[in-house]
Amino acid sequence: MAIAATEPAATSARPFGPAAALSCRECGERYDLGPKFACEFCFGPLEVAYDHGTVTREQIAAGPLNIWRYAPLLPVPANVDELPNMKPGLTPLVRADRLAAELGLRSLHVKDDSGNPTHSFKDRVVAIAVEAARTFGFRTLSCSSTGNLAGAVGAAAARAGFESCVFIPAGLEEGKVVMAAVYGGKVVALDGNYDDVNRFCSELIGDPAGQDWGFVNVNLRPYYGEGSKTLAYEIAEQLGWRLPEQIVVPIASGSQLTKIDKGFQELIKLGLVEDRPYKVFGAQATGCSPVARAFEQGHDVIQPVKPDTIAKSLAIGNPADGPYVLDVCRRTGGAVAHVSDAEVVDSIKLLARTEGIFAETAGGVTTGVLRKLLAEGVLDPQAETVVLNTGDGLKTLNAVDSGATATIRPSLDAFKEAGLL
Amino acid sequence: MAIAATEPAATSARPFGPAAALSCRECGERYDLGPKFACEFCFGPLEVAYDHGTVTREQIAAGPLNIWRYAPLLPVPANVDELPNMKPGLTPLVRADRLAAELGLRSLHVKDDSGNPTHSFKDRVVAIAVEAARTFGFRTLSCSSTGNLAGAVGAAAARAGFESCVFIPAGLEEGKVVMAAVYGGKVVALDGNYDDVNRFCSELIGDPAGQDWGFVNVNLRPYYGEGSKTLAYEIAEQLGWRLPEQIVVPIASGSQLTKIDKGFQELIKLGLVEDRPYKVFGAQATGCSPVARAFEQGHDVIQPVKPDTIAKSLAIGNPADGPYVLDVCRRTGGAVAHVSDAEVVDSIKLLARTEGIFAETAGGVTTGVLRKLLAEGVLDPQAETVVLNTGDGLKTLNAVDSGATATIRPSLDAFKEAGLL
Repeated sequence: MAIAATEPAATSARPFGPAAALSCRECGERYDLGPKFACEFCFGPLEVAYDHGTVTREQIAAGPLNIWRYAPLLPVPANVDELPNMKPGLTPLVRADRLAAELGLRSLHVKDDSGNPTHSFKDRVVAIAVEAARTFGFRTLSCSSTGNLAGAVGAAAARAGFESCVFIPAGLEEGKVVMAAVYGGKVVALDGNYDDVNRFCSELIGDPAGQDWGFVNVNLRPYYGEGSKTLAYEIAEQLGWRLPEQIVVPIASGSQLTKIDKGFQELIKLGLVEDRPYKVFGAQATGCSPVARAFEQGHDVIQPVKPDTIAKSLAIGNPADGPYVLDVCRRTGGAVAHVSDAEVVDSIKLLARTEGIFAETAGGVTTGVLRKLLAEGVLDPQAETVVLNTGDGLKTLNAVDSGATATIRPSLDAFKEAGLL
Repeated sequence: MAIAATEPAATSARPFGPAAALSCRECGERYDLGPKFACEFCFGPLEVAYDHGTVTREQIAAGPLNIWRYAPLLPVPANVDELPNMKPGLTPLVRADRLAAELGLRSLHVKDDSGNPTHSFKDRVVAIAVEAARTFGFRTLSCSSTGNLAGAVGAAAARAGFESCVFIPAGLEEGKVVMAAVYGGKVVALDGNYDDVNRFCSELIGDPAGQDWGFVNVNLRPYYGEGSKTLAYEIAEQLGWRLPEQIVVPIASGSQLTKIDKGFQELIKLGLVEDRPYKVFGAQATGCSPVARAFEQGHDVIQPVKPDTIAKSLAIGNPADGPYVLDVCRRTGGAVAHVSDAEVVDSIKLLARTEGIFAETAGGVTTGVLRKLLAEGVLDPQAETVVLNTGDGLKTLNAVDSGATATIRPSLDAFKEAGLL
């Protein structure tokens, strides 16, 4: 295994690697690979279709120690690791024996994505979108963001030499805003919630002002979304090329959950893992749980809500991929559930206390839903289970009330008097 | 390369692996491996001495993707990766072409340790100390800390099932305090600076109240210190088994710098890298620059100072390993220099803007000293250079004044009127 840092090189002749086309998720219409995101016929979302050929475990194992080891499964050039990008991924799959014991689970791993360069899973999706932006000749990167994405875009734009201008709802956590801004790009806060920000970006992309911009989660969305598949690839490889039996995934737009399923399906199709059943469980905060409500009520249509939760990174009231999330969870025998903000905080502390992992609120949501669905008998305590932590507690400090146990004079007497022993 | 997560297993019969003894850095007296830190004869600091035998690149390459791949070079059991610990390390060595171009350097890499589990290099040293604590039968972990160490100890104690009680100076950055506390251990703030906290811990360890505690940076210090060698090993391996020609390292206690040198020397001695000259440069903030002052004045003795700098993680006014830092920097032909707090902030932004890396203040110190010593002609712009970022900007948010560029209504008109295009 070569872990040496690579030298930069010229761009590839096949900038999208194994990707063959864009295809409409609804009607199947195919398009050339370009900065398109909606079907011209049915307005369905476009996604990347592949012509994979043969991909082997050995080929992947010989690759770099980041998501680019999966380049044969992604819409990126073969030399992508040599280009100036953030190289996220291969984050720890933590064997969580102490948490498992506390919850009565036989086997639990936490996929801890806080180790990514800007400490959220968003570095994965942005990395793919940036390569597409480079190929399409965009000079400015943009996005609508609940916070983590803004930081990931700012950092990736800086590393790759793009301008950036990102849009966030006003009132986000300080850590997310400072981080997004420190890379030197523009950070524009909009008075409204994420859904307002998203609408604004859709308008901007139709306006001459935004036409030459690469919006990672709008006109580059088909590429961007593929980055979430790397979570599936890594979990399978880190389990020893095996799918977990149960996985708990947070839902914001819902894209991540559907792409993890797509990733598992690709691994099965390519013969990289055994075809065994797995169940996908979606997790939302009660204060923004439109997908969980639809699941509970057996509906196929998502009723948009106005978010009111401390889990701001999941606060998307009108989740674009909600119906596809319902499909995946129903098809695999999983479920979608929600937990209250109090349970989110308690679950952040549970994960920290048992495994030394300081999750952001989204990780509190998944851990809370894990606990809830185990207690309800929906999750099988005997099945091999993976729970995702997609962000970092340092970005949502205010969610937890932790602080110094005591402040005292620096003397032994003061220490003993404080009753801290 | 196997990247699969490992199963827990019983402790090893050789709990300290290749370590043979503790030896006094001053007089060479040897002691059995135990929870000792000072020589009984001359009061010199004890360090770990090894009986390495043969260690090959292939042996290391076959190991796990964290610091435990270097277990044959550390005082840990061979099965250490199977034990419940944080598994830090193998953080990115980022090829920093844009920063290099801006500074006029031919070749620059940033060793970015913010990707560690608690986002600082302290996870490395704590990981080794925890294994020693386990072997010695301590049930409570403790430390004196400027902040990063407190978080690393809290997390590692939680993962490994120890109690913890850590000591910090009052007035630390919020992110560091919240993170330290969230893992459920005790966090005691002392009214005073780090040197006061350190004195307090020395008292406590001599008191019955603290005698059964493992203080990672006091009675476990010989083991703890060895963790910093892994920075040297990783840099060499990531450069393709080659030493850099110049390296810029921050100085707090000075231990990290001396252990990086020790790591390079071991690699040379074991034939793992070519024996070529390298220069070690130490970096301090002007407001706490006792080692830099001694270097400038040609002194061998460090005159303690009262720290006054935003670089709180480096704010140790009486650095224990200061004299050894002077030895290393003089012997290798390096230097020790300091930069002002304003230069620290400017350098944090420079690194963020050019490479998408959001460093804590300590990373601003090293980047600032890199820039300063290049401008002064002390660093060679033609030499292969590595600069360390040992912490995370999310923990020192207040150091940078970054924030949203503007807050506006979510409408195209408002956006255009704000003059943001």
